[in-house]
Amino acid sequence: MLTLQLLLVKFGIRFVGVKLGILGLGTVGTGTVQLLQDSAGRHPLLRDVEIYRVGVRSLDKPRAVKIPDAVLTTDLEAIVNDPQVDIVVEVIGGLEPARSLILKAIENGKHVVSANKAVISRFGDEIFTAANQAGVYVMLEAAVGGGIPVIQPLKQSLSVNRIHTVTGIVNGTTNYILTRMQTEGSSFNDVLADAQKLGYAEADPSADVDGLDAADKIAILASLAFGGRIKLQNVYCEGIRQVSKTDIAYADKLGFVIKLLAIAKRVNLPSITPSPHLPISVRVHPTLVPKTHPLASINGVYNAILVEGEPIGQVMFFGPGAGAGATASAVSSDILNLVAVLQASTTTPNPLLTCGHQDYCEITPSEELISRFYSRFITKDQPGVIGKLGTCFGKYGVSLESVVQTGFQGELAEIVVVTHDVREGDFRQALAEIQTLEAIDSIPSLLRVL
Amino acid sequence: MLTLQLLLVKFGIRFVGVKLGILGLGTVGTGTVQLLQDSAGRHPLLRDVEIYRVGVRSLDKPRAVKIPDAVLTTDLEAIVNDPQVDIVVEVIGGLEPARSLILKAIENGKHVVSANKAVISRFGDEIFTAANQAGVYVMLEAAVGGGIPVIQPLKQSLSVNRIHTVTGIVNGTTNYILTRMQTEGSSFNDVLADAQKLGYAEADPSADVDGLDAADKIAILASLAFGGRIKLQNVYCEGIRQVSKTDIAYADKLGFVIKLLAIAKRVNLPSITPSPHLPISVRVHPTLVPKTHPLASINGVYNAILVEGEPIGQVMFFGPGAGAGATASAVSSDILNLVAVLQASTTTPNPLLTCGHQDYCEITPSEELISRFYSRFITKDQPGVIGKLGTCFGKYGVSLESVVQTGFQGELAEIVVVTHDVREGDFRQALAEIQTLEAIDSIPSLLRVL
Repeated sequence: MLTLQLLLVKFGIRFVGVKLGILGLGTVGTGTVQLLQDSAGRHPLLRDVEIYRVGVRSLDKPRAVKIPDAVLTTDLEAIVNDPQVDIVVEVIGGLEPARSLILKAIENGKHVVSANKAVISRFGDEIFTAANQAGVYVMLEAAVGGGIPVIQPLKQSLSVNRIHTVTGIVNGTTNYILTRMQTEGSSFNDVLADAQKLGYAEADPSADVDGLDAADKIAILASLAFGGRIKLQNVYCEGIRQVSKTDIAYADKLGFVIKLLAIAKRVNLPSITPSPHLPISVRVHPTLVPKTHPLASINGVYNAILVEGEPIGQVMFFGPGAGAGATASAVSSDILNLVAVLQASTTTPNPLLTCGHQDYCEITPSEELISRFYSRFITKDQPGVIGKLGTCFGKYGVSLESVVQTGFQGELAEIVVVTHDVREGDFRQALAEIQTLEAIDSIPSLLRVL
Repeated sequence: MLTLQLLLVKFGIRFVGVKLGILGLGTVGTGTVQLLQDSAGRHPLLRDVEIYRVGVRSLDKPRAVKIPDAVLTTDLEAIVNDPQVDIVVEVIGGLEPARSLILKAIENGKHVVSANKAVISRFGDEIFTAANQAGVYVMLEAAVGGGIPVIQPLKQSLSVNRIHTVTGIVNGTTNYILTRMQTEGSSFNDVLADAQKLGYAEADPSADVDGLDAADKIAILASLAFGGRIKLQNVYCEGIRQVSKTDIAYADKLGFVIKLLAIAKRVNLPSITPSPHLPISVRVHPTLVPKTHPLASINGVYNAILVEGEPIGQVMFFGPGAGAGATASAVSSDILNLVAVLQASTTTPNPLLTCGHQDYCEITPSEELISRFYSRFITKDQPGVIGKLGTCFGKYGVSLESVVQTGFQGELAEIVVVTHDVREGDFRQALAEIQTLEAIDSIPSLLRVL
């Protein structure tokens, strides 16, 4: 009979070094274990990582990876309480028990790697406050942008800049749907149904198509870029269900593609006396993006994050936003960073890895924001409709960049309007008044323009 | 009269923390000083940096930044020998005295930040061996890709992957020239002359247009991606002087754009028993890039680096490849990392910041490489010329993807050929034989296809 030690050697698991307790063995957990068990040709520090415990729901499930029985357990609490465990890797997802297990691990002095954007965006305050008190690190590279290294650059390299905007395509499912609507001229419902069949969208697609997943992610990115915590309820969020193939076709003619953008932006740039408390806006909404913009050509399930700041200008990160391999790469890079920290035997925490802020960012209400808008009106075919629209917009200071009267649907005409930069509150007041005009049948579309 | 201390306070320079000795106050040095003197809204650790000495050639030159007289010196040796200096920032460029000053700084136990791709690519072996012996770090984020954070991701996050290819547009001048040739249909010489007038190309443009700058940079990227040192003389290097507007037009019709790519690639992917000594190829040459490829849309002075590996797939970094602000961002990010390390008072070096390899990579000779080729032939207008070409290619196992006979120039016809993947040695043998054919007038173009 093989001893446990021989068994572990057989499975390529070493004894030295840093002990991992992995919570969850789904797609991301399995990808991470595969990467760590097959360390040749990767960073040599990974060989000092021992997969010490793996917590699963059921011991009997067939697995894509070989893990010794002694390593597998259903007792997740025991993993975060085990004094032998150095790093807890939380890849179970969902809010609970993930949140409680992370907090318990921190309380027990363990570093944490998490791929859980939902927990971090909702409970980041609690989690990072606890981590700072305990002197441990909570790493979250995998929470945003899949394999794209964006969290570490934002916390480290790019933080020498004054960041003024972070704009991301951070949800692969919606980008896949919009890309197919664009290239095929299909409707949202048709593409969604097909995406569900192909496994690109979940049976319940709301977290993706209603923008909630993107909202979690931009809250995290905003927090790092602007050095303040973000209350998720302050993130304006609008999904892509109402994006019609008609609007995609109009946008195309006007030189735009429609993308679900997640945007975090300083509302006023720092003047001579910059203040850390300048308000920001954080929002997710379908947006008309000029075809020449770097984000316009990001198609399919790919993600991209564009960071703009002073003095760097524009930097963009592009890559696979999801998938076992890409996410495992991000999780493992966090593990690698922690191994380096643990082996360097520091006496004080590395300020580039801790959470350096505890205050909340001030979020500007959306009616104060300045942006361009695209709107489509169905009007009665009367003379002077465009004049009435123009007068009403003018009354509220909304200046128009282009007005296009296009197709007719029986008795009704269709007018598409793109505004110059306007205050959102003014635009909404104008729209409310236009809605009451006798000549207006309906306003089926209202989208922002980048 | 103001005391030195008050003067320093007036100029926004603090006394606490980490002391910098900056060598050089040209574009990059000035940008870095500006960034550090104006630290509000940036990472708070930067406030612990003191600009302690700045070495310049002449004290009397007018400067865009205010630096107290006591900080400025023409004695660069004194800076690298000053026991007070913690970090030496080398931004003078050129080979000497940069190399000697870096080595002296290392010998004196100082960390080094360098933006000098020429020195690092030529003397990296000497410099990193010395740094490892002295237990100090040599940081080089600014050496490649301007402000784009690519060095740190390659050393850290991405190193958990088995990287198989790094492909970059890493020289802004040549990308600017090729972009304008493409959009305007102009010739190389015309665009170069204009670029020189506009300041986008140097009076002596050879470092850029002959690919030497890109060769330095891909040598550095290859070294980090593949964990071995690179001898610069093993980097195959071909510039863009011979790229004609005719070829750009043909490439466009065939669905390609022509880019100067810097490519480092594992020639054989690791099989079941991966070896760290698998050979790589490292090269710079104009390349036909399919229009759908992520690098095809990188235009003007922008840079981009595409990293491919297992399991991450494709990740691309995009941003400004040069300029005072972008490069200052990269230099300052290295300074920030070192400040974090110094303040964390580690007792052993951080293995993610040291140079982890000392062996040289094995470089495959270019005749062994497999690639597609584009070639343009000027032939006599005889029947059967395409047949003769095809026969000769076939003899050497070169299979053709497309053959297009296009314009006529008087008695002469023009034939453009794109091959399937072939061994470069075989292709060159076929070409040598074709050159001897009576029907062939000349072979003006030979380019690689991605």
